[in-house]
Amino acid sequence: MRSDPSRLSFEIDARDGDARAGRLVTAHGVVETPAFIPLATRGSVRSLESADVAGLGYELVLGNTFHLFLAPGAGRIARLGGLHEFMAWDKAIITDSGGFQVFSLAHGTVADEIKGRRGRSGTEGRVLEISEKGVRFRSYVDGSERFMGPEESMSVQAALGSDIALVFDECTPFHADRDYTARSTERTHRWLGRCLDWHADNGPPRQAVFGIVQGGVHEDLRRESAETVTAAGVDGISIGGTLGKDKPEMYGVLDMTLPHLDRRTAKHLLGIGEPDDLVEGIARGVDVFDCAVPTRLARHGMALAPLPGKRHRFDVRRSALTEDQGPLVEGCPCPACSSYTRAYVHYLSREQELTAVRLLCLHNLAYLRSVVAGARHAIFQGAFEKYRKAILGGAAPWEVE
Amino acid sequence: MRSDPSRLSFEIDARDGDARAGRLVTAHGVVETPAFIPLATRGSVRSLESADVAGLGYELVLGNTFHLFLAPGAGRIARLGGLHEFMAWDKAIITDSGGFQVFSLAHGTVADEIKGRRGRSGTEGRVLEISEKGVRFRSYVDGSERFMGPEESMSVQAALGSDIALVFDECTPFHADRDYTARSTERTHRWLGRCLDWHADNGPPRQAVFGIVQGGVHEDLRRESAETVTAAGVDGISIGGTLGKDKPEMYGVLDMTLPHLDRRTAKHLLGIGEPDDLVEGIARGVDVFDCAVPTRLARHGMALAPLPGKRHRFDVRRSALTEDQGPLVEGCPCPACSSYTRAYVHYLSREQELTAVRLLCLHNLAYLRSVVAGARHAIFQGAFEKYRKAILGGAAPWEVE
Repeated sequence: MRSDPSRLSFEIDARDGDARAGRLVTAHGVVETPAFIPLATRGSVRSLESADVAGLGYELVLGNTFHLFLAPGAGRIARLGGLHEFMAWDKAIITDSGGFQVFSLAHGTVADEIKGRRGRSGTEGRVLEISEKGVRFRSYVDGSERFMGPEESMSVQAALGSDIALVFDECTPFHADRDYTARSTERTHRWLGRCLDWHADNGPPRQAVFGIVQGGVHEDLRRESAETVTAAGVDGISIGGTLGKDKPEMYGVLDMTLPHLDRRTAKHLLGIGEPDDLVEGIARGVDVFDCAVPTRLARHGMALAPLPGKRHRFDVRRSALTEDQGPLVEGCPCPACSSYTRAYVHYLSREQELTAVRLLCLHNLAYLRSVVAGARHAIFQGAFEKYRKAILGGAAPWEVE
Repeated sequence: MRSDPSRLSFEIDARDGDARAGRLVTAHGVVETPAFIPLATRGSVRSLESADVAGLGYELVLGNTFHLFLAPGAGRIARLGGLHEFMAWDKAIITDSGGFQVFSLAHGTVADEIKGRRGRSGTEGRVLEISEKGVRFRSYVDGSERFMGPEESMSVQAALGSDIALVFDECTPFHADRDYTARSTERTHRWLGRCLDWHADNGPPRQAVFGIVQGGVHEDLRRESAETVTAAGVDGISIGGTLGKDKPEMYGVLDMTLPHLDRRTAKHLLGIGEPDDLVEGIARGVDVFDCAVPTRLARHGMALAPLPGKRHRFDVRRSALTEDQGPLVEGCPCPACSSYTRAYVHYLSREQELTAVRLLCLHNLAYLRSVVAGARHAIFQGAFEKYRKAILGGAAPWEVE
């Protein structure tokens, strides 16, 4: 397999240092980059309709291969016309490979990971066997035994009909030692080959495939993985695996990875998307990001905001906001900030009204969209470094000149 | 107090038998009748924004005095500019009196009621004292002792700034005997006088007040209550209390009540809103209805549909719909049916995705809006009886010529 513009082309319109403004041209339209990708895990973005997501300016969403494989099933979605038709979304879709989720059954969730737990969250006994072939596990839907390996993942993604498929990999956990990480990364590379072989013979002609760089926090493994994935001739490259214990280490992993990737290739940072991470990733040459943060924060009553000392967020349920008549974030053009006060969202969120989740999802997604749109504008102006510093310093993305 | 067109006027544009097509002219716009009123219990209609509710064609929503009194509090909403401003809704609002909820603490919930239970649902010990003055109870929000009587209810509704306030009453439960119902109805009448007195001295000049007819299932009590409320000179009349054990008995209660009410007055049936009940109520002269059904059904994965043998609803989670590519209801012009399949809503609802609740709320509210809009049209055509039979027989409201 070689990268092929009939599946996907990536045009770089402007560069500013290592940051780039580009366009991913997919079978379902153009995605301007830098871009943030909202999660449509089970074919919907939490509390929103597809039209709402498009209305926020998004051109690409991420569907979850693992969850859609278990229910409603890839064959069913194919019979219903594919994932675009199923969810009434005519713009681009990227699907993850399911690797992250099947291995999370063994390694524990990201939350377990962060908290130093291992294999918790009721996932014990879910993984029956991990082998060169793939992973045998028990479905959380009906308890049945299921199997997913490179070919199965690609086959599911083919049935879903996504514009961009990701190769099946093991997301090496933070607690894995160097030896485990090295062996796992080698297996991920062998799986990369099998994914590309399967796709060359069976993949939808217009579906692009992104390879995934692993290697944990080890510079030599990251470099080797970057070179291996680049040499495989993929349509784009995702950076996965553990990115370290904190943000400086994450940026360090990007610094040890990106220089070894082809500058012309589209680059995707997996599972990262806080405002500071977006500008730091863009500064290093990342083009697209996906992350659960905006929608997950919404569920917990948190709004994204230009507050670098507070992780760019605040809790709308704080008592201080009980009678606050301002919008969630002053100047924010989102549907929630245009019509409603902090006092209203505060009250609805405290009362666990579903409308609060919707308003916060709209705001948080609009906020991240503003961050990447502002970055794109700044790159064209040759002013990205100033923009990055402004965002890190607490400016709202629409305030930066 | 006398009814006053500066607060509210009700213009009847067409009559067809006892059914009428009219316009309620409120301080926040005109409400075409017959009308269904969505519940914005805590200042939001479940999963929707105020703009969504307006987009469905609704001109009037119902806010809940009891819940808004306990949190965020009437004073707070007043300081935030009133309920319209708080929830960004510039059309009309009716507020219930809180009587139903405070007495539910003693009598049990509607669900308890239907199931023949008494004072269940963890409400034991919540009511501290019921007296001529009002009801002393414990707040579910913070456990504090609170009091609500006629004057307090009117004062809260004044602070909320609703266009139509309801008088404070006891909703007599189905399990109450005739003697209890008679004494309760007399007290409700005394409270009616106190509410109107308070409002004449202190009410917002443009807020209308609806009286409530009680009397249970007893013809003489209903007639007496209808006459008492009519004589009090209210701006409109709500029909409350138990309406019997089943639909025939409910229609019987309407038949024993409506003939004793002034034909020119706007009439509101409290807490009723299934499609068959709407056309049966309209046939008897009811103008507006409020009900939790459309939004509560949405939470349970149920869609309203022209299925009279199945209570005008179906369960979207049924296995038969797994690959059903039709809309929820063929021909339905709602946002959910315009864009999404039954298979999609089925899947999202099974997976408990919030988007499913939203799509079902949009559909169910749009469906009831179609039922009342169709009724209005039929009344103008002098064809309401045909319309009523068509709806009862399983026609979709937009199919009836």
